[in-house]
Amino acid sequence: MSKPTNSDMQQVWQQDKDHYIHPWTDFSTFKETGSMVLADSDNVHVIDGDGKRYLDGIGGLWCVNIGYGNEEMAEAIAQQVRQIPYYSCFGHHTTVPAAKLAAKLAELAPGNLNHVFYGCGGSVANDTAVRMIHFYFNQLGKKSKKQIISRIDGYHGSTYMAMSITGVKFDHIGFDIEEKLVHHISCPNPYRRPAGQSLEDFCDQKVQELEDKILELGPDNVAAFFAEPIMGAGGVIVPPEGYHKRTLDVCRKYGVLYVSDEVVTAFGRLGHMFASQDEFDFVPDIITCAKGLTSGYLPLGATIISDDIYEVISKPQADGAIFTHGFTYSGHPVSCAAGLKNIEIMERMQLCDHVRDMGAYFENQLKTLLDLPIVGDVRGRKFMMCIENVADKETKALIDPAAKVGNRIADHCQARGLIVRPLAHMNVLSPPLTLTKEHIDFLVATLRESIEVTIEDLRRDGFL
Amino acid sequence: MSKPTNSDMQQVWQQDKDHYIHPWTDFSTFKETGSMVLADSDNVHVIDGDGKRYLDGIGGLWCVNIGYGNEEMAEAIAQQVRQIPYYSCFGHHTTVPAAKLAAKLAELAPGNLNHVFYGCGGSVANDTAVRMIHFYFNQLGKKSKKQIISRIDGYHGSTYMAMSITGVKFDHIGFDIEEKLVHHISCPNPYRRPAGQSLEDFCDQKVQELEDKILELGPDNVAAFFAEPIMGAGGVIVPPEGYHKRTLDVCRKYGVLYVSDEVVTAFGRLGHMFASQDEFDFVPDIITCAKGLTSGYLPLGATIISDDIYEVISKPQADGAIFTHGFTYSGHPVSCAAGLKNIEIMERMQLCDHVRDMGAYFENQLKTLLDLPIVGDVRGRKFMMCIENVADKETKALIDPAAKVGNRIADHCQARGLIVRPLAHMNVLSPPLTLTKEHIDFLVATLRESIEVTIEDLRRDGFL
Repeated sequence: MSKPTNSDMQQVWQQDKDHYIHPWTDFSTFKETGSMVLADSDNVHVIDGDGKRYLDGIGGLWCVNIGYGNEEMAEAIAQQVRQIPYYSCFGHHTTVPAAKLAAKLAELAPGNLNHVFYGCGGSVANDTAVRMIHFYFNQLGKKSKKQIISRIDGYHGSTYMAMSITGVKFDHIGFDIEEKLVHHISCPNPYRRPAGQSLEDFCDQKVQELEDKILELGPDNVAAFFAEPIMGAGGVIVPPEGYHKRTLDVCRKYGVLYVSDEVVTAFGRLGHMFASQDEFDFVPDIITCAKGLTSGYLPLGATIISDDIYEVISKPQADGAIFTHGFTYSGHPVSCAAGLKNIEIMERMQLCDHVRDMGAYFENQLKTLLDLPIVGDVRGRKFMMCIENVADKETKALIDPAAKVGNRIADHCQARGLIVRPLAHMNVLSPPLTLTKEHIDFLVATLRESIEVTIEDLRRDGFL
Repeated sequence: MSKPTNSDMQQVWQQDKDHYIHPWTDFSTFKETGSMVLADSDNVHVIDGDGKRYLDGIGGLWCVNIGYGNEEMAEAIAQQVRQIPYYSCFGHHTTVPAAKLAAKLAELAPGNLNHVFYGCGGSVANDTAVRMIHFYFNQLGKKSKKQIISRIDGYHGSTYMAMSITGVKFDHIGFDIEEKLVHHISCPNPYRRPAGQSLEDFCDQKVQELEDKILELGPDNVAAFFAEPIMGAGGVIVPPEGYHKRTLDVCRKYGVLYVSDEVVTAFGRLGHMFASQDEFDFVPDIITCAKGLTSGYLPLGATIISDDIYEVISKPQADGAIFTHGFTYSGHPVSCAAGLKNIEIMERMQLCDHVRDMGAYFENQLKTLLDLPIVGDVRGRKFMMCIENVADKETKALIDPAAKVGNRIADHCQARGLIVRPLAHMNVLSPPLTLTKEHIDFLVATLRESIEVTIEDLRRDGFL
C-alpha cells in the first residue's frame, strides 16, 4: 500500500487513482494500491510524499543521467521560456536552441550522421525512422523495399508502429500490432544460448539468422534492421563480441539500412556520448535517441541520419510535394535548450569519464551477488545492468512467474530506501551517472539483503 | 532570403540549414533560403534574429494561447525542475503535477470523460486512442472490430498511425500509410458543396455517407470515427449545423466509438475549455488534446476517455498481462506543471470570455475582406479562422497552384510585420488568445494590403 500519511499527499494519491491512466499499469492491483507519489528529489535521491528518501537505482527510467534537481538546468529552461517558449519549426522557421543542438548532435554522432529530426521521445524517434526510410526508398523508386526486421526482446517504443517493431512479446498481449511489415528474429542473449554452444558459434548463428531472414523476405523487400546496441527493456542483453559489426556487414551486403536505437545507451550510460562506434565499433545509418539527451528533464528525442540518406530525402519531389512529416513540438526550443545545457553539464563534469571509471566498479560489485542461490546472471555494461533470478542456476530454470520475484526484490529494496526496477523475474539498474562509490556500496549491500529476504519469502511460500 | 544580418544569428542560420531537418520542409527552396530565425517574443509578438517584430497571427502553430514569454509560466516550470524534474509514471508511480492535472482535466472535460492518458503531443494522443480502442474491443472479445473511419482533409498527426488516419491527401505523397485499417469519407466543407444544394441536404448527405461506410465495412468491423469539431490543417472547415450530433448518433447506433480530436479547438480557441459540448453540443467517447493544454510552452498531449471505456480497459486481463502501453514522458512532471499553470492563468484572465467577445469582432473584421476579388471564403469561428483565395468567386475555381498564392500573401504580410500561415491557396489565422481590438485592426489592415499587393503580382505574372 503506497498511500501517503499526510492529507495533501493523500489527495494527490486519490486524484491519481481516480483519473490518471499510467503506462504499464497492472490493473489487478492498481485500484487497490494506487501509486507511490514521488514529490521531491536531489542528485541521486528521490523523496516520496511522506518525506522518505530513496536512492534511485533506475535514474527515473534510464534517463536522469546528470542527477535530479540541477539548478543550472532550471535556470537554462526558465531563461528560454522567458525568451521564446515556443515557435513552430514547420517549413522555414527555426529557433536558436533547435539549430544549435542539431549542430552539436551532428558533431557528437559518429561517421557522417549529420542531420537531425526532432520528436519528443524514443517511440516517436523510431516511428519517424520508419517513415523516413519508407520515404527514402520511395524517392529512390524502390517501392517494394519497406519491410522491417527487428529482434525478439528488442524494445523500440509504444506508438502503433514502434510497438510493432518492439519484440517483447509480453508487451503485445491484448493490443494489435502491424504484422505484415515487421519481422522478428531471435534474441542474441548469450546467457540463454544452448548448453555447450560456444559464444563464437552462437554469434555465427545469430548473424546467419539475419541474413537468412533477408533472403527469405527478399533483399528488394527489406528496408531496415532495428537494433539496440544493448537491449534495454528486453532484459539488458549484451550480444556476443562482433555481433554488431557483422550484422551491419550483412545489412550493407543487401542494401538494408541499420537503425541503431540508442535511446538508452547514448549520453553517457555506457561511458560515451553514443555507444555504437565508441563502445561497439560500428557506424549505423541512423541513430535514434531520447532519454539521456535531456537527462529526462524535458521531453525530447531525435532521429539522426547519415549524409547519404539526407541527400536522397532532401531532393525536391518530382510532383512538387514536400517532406510532409513532423510534429508541433519537433525542435521545441525549451526542450532543445535543456538538451544543450545537459550536454554542456555532462562535458564539464566529465561524466563519460566518470562512468568508464565507476562503471567498472559497479559491474564488479554487482557480480559479487552471483554467490546468492537465485542470482543466475549479472549482466550489462557500466551503468546499464541487470540481475536475472532463476530457480536453478545449473539448468537456468525460472521461478514460477506467479511468484513475481522481480517485484518482491524491488519491494524489499524500496522498504530499505532503494529503487530498482522489476522486469518479470529480473531487476534492472540504470542509476544517475553521478553515482559515487559510496552510493554503489549502499546499493549492492541493500540488493544483497533484499534478495536474501526474498529467498526466505519464496521458500516460505513454496516457490523454492 | 531569411539569412539574418548579424554574425551570431548567421551562424545559427547556417547550423540550421546544415543539420536540422524541419517538419514539412519544401526542399525545392530550403537549401537556398534556409530558415527564418525566431529569437525572442513578447505576448502576441515574436522577434527575428535581426530584432524585427511580428504580430504572430498563428500563435506558434495554433498553440500559444496565453501569449509568449509569460513570467509565471517560467517560474512554475523552473520550480518543478528544481523539485523533481522527472519521474517515470510506469506502473505504480506518480508525481504531484501529473495527478493534479489529470483531476483538473477530468473536471473540465464534458460528460463522463474522467480518465487521462498522457503523451507529448496530438499525434501521439491520437495514436494512443487507436491503441486503446483496439485494446478495448479485444477486452470485450470483439476481435474484428478494429477499423477506423476518418475524413478527407481531417488532420490527426504524423506518427505512422496518426498520418494514416489523417485525410489530407497532399500529406501522404511520398510516404507510406496503413491502408487496410483506415477509411476516409468525404469532407463536410459547406463552401465546396455542389452548386444549388441546400446546407440541410448537404448535411444529410454527409451523415448518410458515414452510415453507409459503416454498413459497407460491417458494424462488427468498425471500431471508431475520428473527427475534429472544426478541421484545422485541412483548411478550417466548419461542418454544417447538426453534423456533429448526428454523426455521433450514427456511431452510437452501431457501437462505434467517437473520438473528438480537440488538439486545436480545446483550451480557449473557440471560447471554451473544450469545444465538443460547449460549442457543438455533443459528448464524444474520447477527446484528444495537446497544443493549448500548455499553450505550447512544453510538449504535452492527452487522451481523455469515458468512464465506460475505462471500466473495460482497467479490468485485469485473464492471462495476467498488464496494460502495456505508454511512454517514458507520459505524465512528465514539468510538462504537467506547465499545463496546470496554463489552465490557472487562462481561468484567472478569463480568456474564454475574452475569446467569445473578441472572437466575434475578429470574425466580422476578417469578413470585410470578402470584397477583395480573390477572397472566396472567410470561415472558421472566433480565433480559428481561414481565408480561401480563388481565381473566380462565382465558380470557386482555384488559382494555378504554381502561383503559390498562400505563400505570396504570407510573404507580403511578413514584410509588413505580420505572420499568417500559408496552406496551399489558403491562409490560416490562429492568434494568441490575448489579442486585443487594436491587434485585430492591424492584422486585418495588413492582410488587406498584402492581398491587394498579391493580386497585382498575380496579374503581373499572368496568374489572374
